[in-house]
Amino acid sequence: MDVLREISAIVSRARAAARALAVLPHAKKDEALHAIVSRLARGASRVLEANAEDVESARASGSSGAMLDRLRLDDARIAAMCAAVAHIAALADPVGTVIERSVRPNGLAVSRVRVPLGVIAMIYEARPNVTIEASALCLKAGNAVVLRGGKEAHRTNLALAEIVGDALEVAALPRASVSVVPFTDRDAVRALVQTQGIDLAIPRGGEALIRFVTEHARVPVVQHYKGVCHLFIDEGADVAVAIALALDGKLSRPGVCNALECLLVDAKDASRTLPPILRTLLDRGCEIRGCERTRALVPAVHAATEGDWGREFLERILAVRVVDGIEGALAHVAQYGSGHTESICTKDAARADRWRSDVDAACVVVNASTRFHDGGELGLGAELGIATSRLHWRGPMGLEALTTMKWIVDGAGQVRG
Amino acid sequence: MDVLREISAIVSRARAAARALAVLPHAKKDEALHAIVSRLARGASRVLEANAEDVESARASGSSGAMLDRLRLDDARIAAMCAAVAHIAALADPVGTVIERSVRPNGLAVSRVRVPLGVIAMIYEARPNVTIEASALCLKAGNAVVLRGGKEAHRTNLALAEIVGDALEVAALPRASVSVVPFTDRDAVRALVQTQGIDLAIPRGGEALIRFVTEHARVPVVQHYKGVCHLFIDEGADVAVAIALALDGKLSRPGVCNALECLLVDAKDASRTLPPILRTLLDRGCEIRGCERTRALVPAVHAATEGDWGREFLERILAVRVVDGIEGALAHVAQYGSGHTESICTKDAARADRWRSDVDAACVVVNASTRFHDGGELGLGAELGIATSRLHWRGPMGLEALTTMKWIVDGAGQVRG
Repeated sequence: MDVLREISAIVSRARAAARALAVLPHAKKDEALHAIVSRLARGASRVLEANAEDVESARASGSSGAMLDRLRLDDARIAAMCAAVAHIAALADPVGTVIERSVRPNGLAVSRVRVPLGVIAMIYEARPNVTIEASALCLKAGNAVVLRGGKEAHRTNLALAEIVGDALEVAALPRASVSVVPFTDRDAVRALVQTQGIDLAIPRGGEALIRFVTEHARVPVVQHYKGVCHLFIDEGADVAVAIALALDGKLSRPGVCNALECLLVDAKDASRTLPPILRTLLDRGCEIRGCERTRALVPAVHAATEGDWGREFLERILAVRVVDGIEGALAHVAQYGSGHTESICTKDAARADRWRSDVDAACVVVNASTRFHDGGELGLGAELGIATSRLHWRGPMGLEALTTMKWIVDGAGQVRG
Repeated sequence: MDVLREISAIVSRARAAARALAVLPHAKKDEALHAIVSRLARGASRVLEANAEDVESARASGSSGAMLDRLRLDDARIAAMCAAVAHIAALADPVGTVIERSVRPNGLAVSRVRVPLGVIAMIYEARPNVTIEASALCLKAGNAVVLRGGKEAHRTNLALAEIVGDALEVAALPRASVSVVPFTDRDAVRALVQTQGIDLAIPRGGEALIRFVTEHARVPVVQHYKGVCHLFIDEGADVAVAIALALDGKLSRPGVCNALECLLVDAKDASRTLPPILRTLLDRGCEIRGCERTRALVPAVHAATEGDWGREFLERILAVRVVDGIEGALAHVAQYGSGHTESICTKDAARADRWRSDVDAACVVVNASTRFHDGGELGLGAELGIATSRLHWRGPMGLEALTTMKWIVDGAGQVRG
């Protein structure tokens, strides 16, 4: 009961803050962002102390090296956060932008303009930089944000929120514009996503977290779900390009959601295209799990099991399947893809068109690496994450994705009659 | 269990249909819409028979005259449905529209294009024309739709869906593009909005229905909630304009969501503006429920109670409150408004700006009737209803609101490295 009451009070204060933020001029919000940068730079030692305690607790409770690495802050990472906030301050503010304007036959001037969404609940896992970047993005778009980070990073997140709160006060913005939920258990997540007054909940993290939020939420949710990204090597593809895309997709950063997880190859040309691609990957220490037709061409690869299709490895492991033409590739992607990023390597314009039209994913790529599905790479400047749901927004969520609209109707006394 | 299984099967078939619809050329969808028009015109007698049974059952179970009127179809109403579908066929298809296009420094061509949402579940109440209009709008935007209308209209809805299904087959579109849930109880609504594979649920109807759906849904929901619309009469307003807006807002069609429910008047000028407005409304038989300051100026009005603020009367009843300036009006609207439509009658440009900026509603109106908040009036051609939620879309939901987007990235072998 205390959890419910406390969260409800946090959300009420956030709502009041959101009303104030919604009508702030752009410069005022940027002033607050710059105050965050300078306070964060000056207050780094406080944050690093809190972070050292978090790292120590996580280590004591047996966290893995990868988790500890995501959790750990140092001066360079603090500096990167400062740079990210300064970068966000420099982006164009979407609030007030006119999306569409028209004049009706009766003289009414009708426009749709961007306004802030309101209160955003961000539910995420270990990396504490999300605390700062999500706060900055939400503020820039005029929203209040309620943060619920991973329990491993709780002391760090509180220290960061304290600095943000001080900066907000300096800039005369409501402190409640950014708040951290003080409870770290799953019950608090459930209470949060059932609290009236939240306009959008964004869960970002592992499958279990996303499912939990989706199942329990009574407020709108945009999921940031896993990326099971495919690359289809078409008949007649340039083998050098195919090798480059496969290497970049799989090995440039295997642990991220836009990394390549499965290579599909057209059977008609597989004896030409597949062996050189797989040899290059094997040479770089990538594990390959292939279908029978793949193993017939490159016997060195492991046998794939049904569970390897549609799997997000997030490691130096690639599933490989020989399929029958673009139809086979489309069918595989429809069945096993996660709607994140799907790429084709082709020289054929008609099949490129077919891929663009028929693949249902947040991002459809032709002759480029899946790794480009990223807010910075696609020109958004910054992002909160990659939305894999269909409603409201799809793909990298930048500032525009954190707004909604309102209709404005200007008349001179018109009535409908 | 049978309900769950059956609904899950309907949604699976709808998903398969949605995949086929998503890649159809515009002309093919319009062909299906024209087939609906001609089959509906020819099959009217079958629909009218089913409707007569529905009306008889509703009457026998004691339904009110207003409900029977909403339920009843006749040749004129069938003709109106045909006209609506023909009109929708003639609208521009949003699918494939490029929202934004850019070329990145590395040469990648990035675009965002409109694609269908997928499977839409429409949950509504008595009026059977929604069955046809929602089907036509969803189809035009490339979506499959699962309809769950009111139980009073169930036979009518099945007859209409039969005609739509036949028309779809004639045009070689999957019959499962439009389906009617064969269960009329609330459990079926719950099962529907918890079924994976639905991309958007739209509840449209009374408060109880909306609450029920919001509470139980595990799929995204856009609410079509009530309209508690206000008109604020500013200091110095033109009294003739104020009278016209109040009359049109309240009396042109009191039973709809964009009707006026509460008049706010600036105290500084109320002795000049309020009496003539209220006298005109009283003369037309409108009941007025006023605050103490209103009654001091126009003693003939009833005393308002706290429950009259924020109330959707949907009748010839108007709440009236004297407030202190635009601040008082904004505070009242923030507390009692439903975020639907809020209008100001003013001659002052600064206060008009203040209203446009500070009122948080789907539609903000300056010097025009609240009744203009409507898809047709705002230029959308047709609408599924008025969205009062904030996410994805706000206000009249036309074809564009029934789409989502995907990113398309075209390269020449680029890698991120």
